[in-house]
Amino acid sequence: MFTGLSAFPLTPIDEKGIDKRAFVGLVTRLADAGVDSIGALGSTGGYAYLSREQRAWAARTAVEAAGTTPVIVGIGALRTRDVLNLAADAQSAGAAAVLLAPMTYQPLTDDEVFGLYEAVTAEISVPLVVYDNPGTTHVTFSDELHGRIAVLPKIGSIKIPGIAVEEAPGRIAVLRAVIPAHVTIGVSGDWLAAGGLLGGADAWYSVLAGLFPETVLAITRAAQTGSSAAAVAASDRLEPLWALFQRYGSLRVVSAAAESLGLVNSPNLPLPLLGLDHAARRELEAALVVLGLN
Amino acid sequence: MFTGLSAFPLTPIDEKGIDKRAFVGLVTRLADAGVDSIGALGSTGGYAYLSREQRAWAARTAVEAAGTTPVIVGIGALRTRDVLNLAADAQSAGAAAVLLAPMTYQPLTDDEVFGLYEAVTAEISVPLVVYDNPGTTHVTFSDELHGRIAVLPKIGSIKIPGIAVEEAPGRIAVLRAVIPAHVTIGVSGDWLAAGGLLGGADAWYSVLAGLFPETVLAITRAAQTGSSAAAVAASDRLEPLWALFQRYGSLRVVSAAAESLGLVNSPNLPLPLLGLDHAARRELEAALVVLGLN
Repeated sequence: MFTGLSAFPLTPIDEKGIDKRAFVGLVTRLADAGVDSIGALGSTGGYAYLSREQRAWAARTAVEAAGTTPVIVGIGALRTRDVLNLAADAQSAGAAAVLLAPMTYQPLTDDEVFGLYEAVTAEISVPLVVYDNPGTTHVTFSDELHGRIAVLPKIGSIKIPGIAVEEAPGRIAVLRAVIPAHVTIGVSGDWLAAGGLLGGADAWYSVLAGLFPETVLAITRAAQTGSSAAAVAASDRLEPLWALFQRYGSLRVVSAAAESLGLVNSPNLPLPLLGLDHAARRELEAALVVLGLN
Repeated sequence: MFTGLSAFPLTPIDEKGIDKRAFVGLVTRLADAGVDSIGALGSTGGYAYLSREQRAWAARTAVEAAGTTPVIVGIGALRTRDVLNLAADAQSAGAAAVLLAPMTYQPLTDDEVFGLYEAVTAEISVPLVVYDNPGTTHVTFSDELHGRIAVLPKIGSIKIPGIAVEEAPGRIAVLRAVIPAHVTIGVSGDWLAAGGLLGGADAWYSVLAGLFPETVLAITRAAQTGSSAAAVAASDRLEPLWALFQRYGSLRVVSAAAESLGLVNSPNLPLPLLGLDHAARRELEAALVVLGLN
């Protein structure tokens, strides 16, 4: 389950609640495209902003809409107690795995981060993906901390931040040396991910694939079959989107792109998050036209 | 209300719930000491880790235990919608003011931070303290953003991070120039706060005062009456505590100190947060003995 392409859909929401029909549509689109797994309630799925009830609904609905495609459900929260409740809800919903980032308000020590994973892996029956995302959690995982956590029971994969293409093989080799062989390494940071796969990563945990699964699957399959040049070229072709991701944040960009495709209403992000402004939307529209994704 | 010393107590909690009796004891101790205001459910009060129901209880209880001392209640949350609900709860509880930090998971743009304060100040009837705390929120307030927010209705004060003593007068003058005259400036970062008061700040929003109100009041009153040398000497005397604050985080240190005084049980922080380890506790005990605070 923790190899190939994992696609992370939006959970469209406004101040009245989740747009249930749109969420089912987004998940169904991913299953139909043949992605290897679906990451519901990831950062792109807005997990940090939703209530326990909304998250339980989204987990159940994603599993149902995904059919035979395995669904990985995000269970992060600031308190360990809440994470344990969310893990139980995800398992009841039929999640094939759970995804856990160490959310922070007070900065956490390494022992506190480890303690969180220890407590959660002691309770769950499905595998867990360690979600290393310093851009949202502000936790810096040392290799030593990755190594301590990766030997806990139930750890199945580590989702790591983007790595510059030239550094990917070295970085992945270093991490591989401190974790058990059965734990896979998945890259994120979509604009760098083709390089990560070619540099030895097992999986791509992708925001863009949550909206454009075929486009990202083509890059993934090229990388998996050793067609390095084709994978790099297909990723480089998306540069207009990658530039927007880096400038405005991938969440705001896929939110606006999903609106543009008519797949979600506007607004679809929880306040205080705002969608792209008018000028950025025009840039995005132009990029989608050039890429034939409109 | 937004001048002098504002003391921020712990909300002692374990995996079963809030230690209600201990919380009442901590708040009563502050009111009895004569602090100028009490900051319930600040970062030290663990607001980010508590449920809406727990926060409503703590707000009501703090107001009751504080008697005539005004209580400022923290209303931060990741979603604007939740902040609005928490503001309503705090007002129902009798809060004299509310305190709002822009909590983040997705990094926020300046317009998003402004939009949060705009939405909240449009709804509340009590004044609001802008809580600028990059160490927990990872939001960097520019002076321009402070200026935009400070002119919103109901803004009463800005709680700013610690400033090095030699930079305090300049920094406070720059901020003063971009905010209305009725908005006060309060400093935090206890180890730097005496310098902040002497450099022109109106208030000290203090973690240490949440446990040792008399000690911190003495420094505050010295600074307020122009006894600069006495204020600096009294603050410098606490250096063993300031060193521990900077090494382990002020929350963990006051948590352990409150245990040491027998005011709270152990543990009293929400997991994944852990108390100080054995060696750090020994350092703390020694410091309390030297300072006569044991």
